[in-house]
Amino acid sequence: MVKDGRVVGRGWTQPGGRPHAERVALHQAGASAKGADVYVTLEPCSHYGKTPPCADALIAAGVARVVVAVGDPNPQVAGQGLSRLRAAGIAVALGVMTQEAARDHQGFLTLQIQARPMVTLKLASSVDGRIATATGESQWITGPEARRRVHLMRACHDAVLVGGGTARADDPMLNTRGLGVAHQPVRVVWSRNLDVPLSGALARTARDTPVWLCCGPSADPALQRAWEDLGARVFVVPVGTGGQVAPREALQALGEAGITRVFCEGGGALAASLLQADLVDRLEVFSAGLALGAEGRPSLGALGVDRLAEAPRFNLLGTEAVGRDVLLRFCR
Amino acid sequence: MVKDGRVVGRGWTQPGGRPHAERVALHQAGASAKGADVYVTLEPCSHYGKTPPCADALIAAGVARVVVAVGDPNPQVAGQGLSRLRAAGIAVALGVMTQEAARDHQGFLTLQIQARPMVTLKLASSVDGRIATATGESQWITGPEARRRVHLMRACHDAVLVGGGTARADDPMLNTRGLGVAHQPVRVVWSRNLDVPLSGALARTARDTPVWLCCGPSADPALQRAWEDLGARVFVVPVGTGGQVAPREALQALGEAGITRVFCEGGGALAASLLQADLVDRLEVFSAGLALGAEGRPSLGALGVDRLAEAPRFNLLGTEAVGRDVLLRFCR
Repeated sequence: MVKDGRVVGRGWTQPGGRPHAERVALHQAGASAKGADVYVTLEPCSHYGKTPPCADALIAAGVARVVVAVGDPNPQVAGQGLSRLRAAGIAVALGVMTQEAARDHQGFLTLQIQARPMVTLKLASSVDGRIATATGESQWITGPEARRRVHLMRACHDAVLVGGGTARADDPMLNTRGLGVAHQPVRVVWSRNLDVPLSGALARTARDTPVWLCCGPSADPALQRAWEDLGARVFVVPVGTGGQVAPREALQALGEAGITRVFCEGGGALAASLLQADLVDRLEVFSAGLALGAEGRPSLGALGVDRLAEAPRFNLLGTEAVGRDVLLRFCR
Repeated sequence: MVKDGRVVGRGWTQPGGRPHAERVALHQAGASAKGADVYVTLEPCSHYGKTPPCADALIAAGVARVVVAVGDPNPQVAGQGLSRLRAAGIAVALGVMTQEAARDHQGFLTLQIQARPMVTLKLASSVDGRIATATGESQWITGPEARRRVHLMRACHDAVLVGGGTARADDPMLNTRGLGVAHQPVRVVWSRNLDVPLSGALARTARDTPVWLCCGPSADPALQRAWEDLGARVFVVPVGTGGQVAPREALQALGEAGITRVFCEGGGALAASLLQADLVDRLEVFSAGLALGAEGRPSLGALGVDRLAEAPRFNLLGTEAVGRDVLLRFCR
């Protein structure tokens, strides 16, 4: 909120979703809100939820103008926030820096529009696309700076996702370490048969940081109970034609449970199933300056791509040197 | 050559190797050379070749100071150029911007020090390291800007190298097109049995732009004659343990024939044989924003790497967006 060229209030939506950013900024601005310009990324809400609509609060505070980057596709809002403001005589501008804001809100928007969280797929491989030697050695292909960046990427998502094979092979913690960030994403494993060790790192720490498992309908109910007893949450979802956890349905289940941003760290089969179903919104590829050769383990499983025109394509967002490695950033 | 803060002469070594840069600059400077500072990348020569030593010419011209980036490892020079200058009372500084100059002269220096040309390996693949679909479709994984850049890379080398399999599969021209550059690198194919079509693009154009073939001792002499009749040059070299053209010996043969910079464009087996023998000095990797999956053809053949510590490692020089693709540049 800006008045006479001075910022009189700032706000962002608080963890858990309330209060909304507008409330926070209005509270900070107090009486200075009257006649102020308000810059918001997302259209102010118009519906009664846990609190009255933000559009009404802006009107009551007497702001002069509201500049909105992106409209809220939520059918309970969907332009009504803007209409309400305009009807009260407030100047409204929509579409300023829309792309940047849509990227920031990609999780929320994807959940609203596609009924699933956004998915970031991370790959980390040699220059020839290998994630381990033929004997399975994979620590470390990328350097410490890249691994640190992965922790930052995890912290920017609601959930970290791996397949059962990766959980078995690497026994990963999948948490955010070494950054001084309090937020820990939910740790999610997709495993059709719940074939994840009950004595592993995830099982041991499920009460400290949430562990959610998506399994198929044929998973042993005793295993489901065992995981639940450890503090984990189990989602039973359909399986796909290849026998794996159906990716869209599993993502939908995560979305219904409140997850808007999923960070997938593999393995290759899970990554391939997401790519095949066109469910990858961002691709973050770490490339290390070494070659492992054709016997090495591929970063992606089979995709069933015969023609180049069928291959999933991504648009380059940028590249960056991260320590001795390179980060390539793509979006769909 | 700089005098009183003004450039009085510039020169670079002419195609074919003579005259040397110093001669060109001295000619341009004329009488202004007297008392000038001379900045050279490579130590001035001290031996009588086709022309008298450049060190003597600089002494005769009465220059005041010579600043040298990198010493000439050629045993006929090897510091004697500098000694000669110093003995004549000329101030000499060695080691200014050595790394940059050594990179520029890497072909010459590698030939002097390792008795082989420098090798740049180009890879162009999907983000998961694939160069074609399972059905062999490979045109085009990278975009037109990347392909244009490849022509520029070719133009910066003396020779372009592919394996026989690539020559058969792609029937490439391997020349430099669309840049207005007159220099055409020699087109080199390594094929143990000279199994390259006599009716292909290389054979048809061997009289226009040189085609050199490296084959094993068991290659059919009639095929050798047929290629020579087309205007190609044939080098018979040993074969390695894997039955392929022995990479070090083939590079040595090219070096003896005057090649200092080789640009290898694959295929995967040839690239792997160069990497295995630690013969790749620079690695230029184009990564396209698409995924082809594990059935796709790998950019590199088998390397026999079991442990990560054995994997050929490269140092990152930089990254660059080239059209929709990314170029990753590494050196050994």
